[in-house]
Amino acid sequence: MSANKTFTQRRGFLKTSLAVGAGVGGTLASNGVTAQPNAFLEIDPWTKTQGSTFVNPPYGLPSKYEKNVVRLLPNPPPLFLTGSRTPIQNLYGIITPNGLHFERHHAGVPDINPEQHRLVIHGLVDRPMIFTMDDIMRFPSESRIYFMECSGNSAAELKKAANNTAQQIHGLISCCEWTGVRVSTILQECGIKPEATWVLAEGADGAAMTRSIPMSKMLDDAILAYAQNGEMLRAEQGYPLRLFLPTYEGNMSIKWLRRLKLGVEPWQTREETSAYTDLREDGKALQFTFTMEVKSVITQPSGMMKLKAKGFYEISGIAWSGNGKIRRVEVSTDSGKTWGEAMLQEPVVDKSLVRFRFPWVWDGAPAVLMSRAVDASGEVQPTMESLIAVKTANTFYHNNAIQPWRVAANGEVTNGR
Amino acid sequence: MSANKTFTQRRGFLKTSLAVGAGVGGTLASNGVTAQPNAFLEIDPWTKTQGSTFVNPPYGLPSKYEKNVVRLLPNPPPLFLTGSRTPIQNLYGIITPNGLHFERHHAGVPDINPEQHRLVIHGLVDRPMIFTMDDIMRFPSESRIYFMECSGNSAAELKKAANNTAQQIHGLISCCEWTGVRVSTILQECGIKPEATWVLAEGADGAAMTRSIPMSKMLDDAILAYAQNGEMLRAEQGYPLRLFLPTYEGNMSIKWLRRLKLGVEPWQTREETSAYTDLREDGKALQFTFTMEVKSVITQPSGMMKLKAKGFYEISGIAWSGNGKIRRVEVSTDSGKTWGEAMLQEPVVDKSLVRFRFPWVWDGAPAVLMSRAVDASGEVQPTMESLIAVKTANTFYHNNAIQPWRVAANGEVTNGR
Repeated sequence: MSANKTFTQRRGFLKTSLAVGAGVGGTLASNGVTAQPNAFLEIDPWTKTQGSTFVNPPYGLPSKYEKNVVRLLPNPPPLFLTGSRTPIQNLYGIITPNGLHFERHHAGVPDINPEQHRLVIHGLVDRPMIFTMDDIMRFPSESRIYFMECSGNSAAELKKAANNTAQQIHGLISCCEWTGVRVSTILQECGIKPEATWVLAEGADGAAMTRSIPMSKMLDDAILAYAQNGEMLRAEQGYPLRLFLPTYEGNMSIKWLRRLKLGVEPWQTREETSAYTDLREDGKALQFTFTMEVKSVITQPSGMMKLKAKGFYEISGIAWSGNGKIRRVEVSTDSGKTWGEAMLQEPVVDKSLVRFRFPWVWDGAPAVLMSRAVDASGEVQPTMESLIAVKTANTFYHNNAIQPWRVAANGEVTNGR
Repeated sequence: MSANKTFTQRRGFLKTSLAVGAGVGGTLASNGVTAQPNAFLEIDPWTKTQGSTFVNPPYGLPSKYEKNVVRLLPNPPPLFLTGSRTPIQNLYGIITPNGLHFERHHAGVPDINPEQHRLVIHGLVDRPMIFTMDDIMRFPSESRIYFMECSGNSAAELKKAANNTAQQIHGLISCCEWTGVRVSTILQECGIKPEATWVLAEGADGAAMTRSIPMSKMLDDAILAYAQNGEMLRAEQGYPLRLFLPTYEGNMSIKWLRRLKLGVEPWQTREETSAYTDLREDGKALQFTFTMEVKSVITQPSGMMKLKAKGFYEISGIAWSGNGKIRRVEVSTDSGKTWGEAMLQEPVVDKSLVRFRFPWVWDGAPAVLMSRAVDASGEVQPTMESLIAVKTANTFYHNNAIQPWRVAANGEVTNGR
């Protein structure tokens, strides 16, 4: 967003050069900040007039200057759009605005009238029940900040460097405050038969997306979510009701939830047999690898950005883990030879994104930036080599390998895979 | 959102009545939940077809069924719109989506090109400086969840019951994750002269909105904010840069920030002399009453809602205080005769909204619901009578009185002021 040249031209009376600016005080110079040592500021045209009082619709939108900060659709668009990616390189903090949450759907986004939507609970329960949205929203609720990651996030990178930006590579991660009713609350109303150990969750979309979920998860932290970041769910996030399984791969948090069936074993649905399994070298596949592992990615600076000058930069990024609270994030600026500990933004919330920051003075030489997260279980984010060594070359889902960003002498940042 | 009649008609084969539904299991009956004891659920039309794959623009919007959940503009619209209110009665959790954050402006919303925007820091500094947005965004940053309340929130209620809904009465309160640079960081770069004790902040809007701020606040938790809820500021929130003064009345968090001047006393600007002061009975006015006091409001149920049946309800609302973390929220369902302690949603974050919840079984008799917050400083939210007794009948700003909601025997909820 630098336009210092434009600025200088526009305000021709400002004779002080960048060099003079950088020279004042010394501190700014070492920071690479191009501030001008002149306190006189011309009055801008927008201060000389009444501002717009009608630009903002009742539901507000981002500034027109941010029109490129949007979800990334496949290019060229496929016949049936199956998802979009979050512009994590343009975000700060941990909250993903609802308008930028990544999406993934298996038969498009259904148009569901909430007054007609129903949730049925049946199978191994004492009292099979059908619930309206009104019914569900009268139960005790809770609100929590949770990350959600698609199990296929970053998958294209496993074979080779396939993409350029953090959004293209890792954009299937988002984080919101989710509100809903504990699944355990609703199930208790129906009466859980003692032999029930698995639950089938089914969506009301055209795919009737179905996954089998262990009862233990359903009685732990699973919620029937109806709101995200304060407001009712977005259509592409399951409006009016979705299952939300914190820390589990995103596809299991069944959207447009219409049915829960209690049983004694997994149903072996399409999405847990033909997809969302992990093929091994012997031709067998692991099923039910639910939890998203410890991971981090530097978002500023990241691929396709450009450092404009030597000096101070705050390296910043996001970290998360399904296996325990983020305990530590380490950052390397020399391709992993040495590591320093990043600052974690408080409060560090379990099962949420965590924002990390690391001060760096760039000397203008080529560099490779990496981040490595460690969680409370002791799990350490692996390098790509060690991940493939363990999971074999067939691995596709659950790529949590370290992302290297290469900084060239001219400041250009590229994918260092 | 109940449409049980419609539902029954549409699915005529469902012979079970509400009474049967409510009778099953006992627990649901006592909860007033109208769930149907029938596990067979007709396949909905939206499950029988491919969903839309093109409904979602790159920047997503709420479901069309939520089109009434919007910021409230004055009706009829004034010549110059000065603000809008957050629909707190339709929100869950603590985060306010950016599209629903209340707004208040004194000369409309300026259209500022971020590449041309500058911040000047001058007055009692060693090195007066002009910063570009690029300069500012290179400094170390932080992200925090903070509430923001307009000092005029709820003011119309002081004389009499003036409005009906929580949004109309209390909608000048919102809460976001704000990201920016500590003011102290930037000021240190300029060098603060020892005698500087006050700072003038000036906006680049047509009002050149100005307020005087104690240096102690600027060196404590004040930030130069450029992002809210992850993304860059909305235009009406000060794009591309605003001052953010946690816990202070909203107008002081100067939007479209163009200038900070360090001095030795307040500048006595228009907005701290003719407005935003507290007139007393003797004709004198208090100035510089910065901090928003302890407050809470029940948002569900609230004015203009209707309880559809006896039984269980979760009373829910928001609490906040500028004087210390929310320690306790008490709820009364009998107009303040008896109080019970509400559950606070963890994590309880200082200077943030806190969501409280209180279980209630409505017996169908008229009732008056109230909430009363207590903060870590020991401050207790006052009744309207005790507030006016202390602040006199002239009081206008900083109304933090308890809000009563009257529930009629027919379930209708109205303003109980």
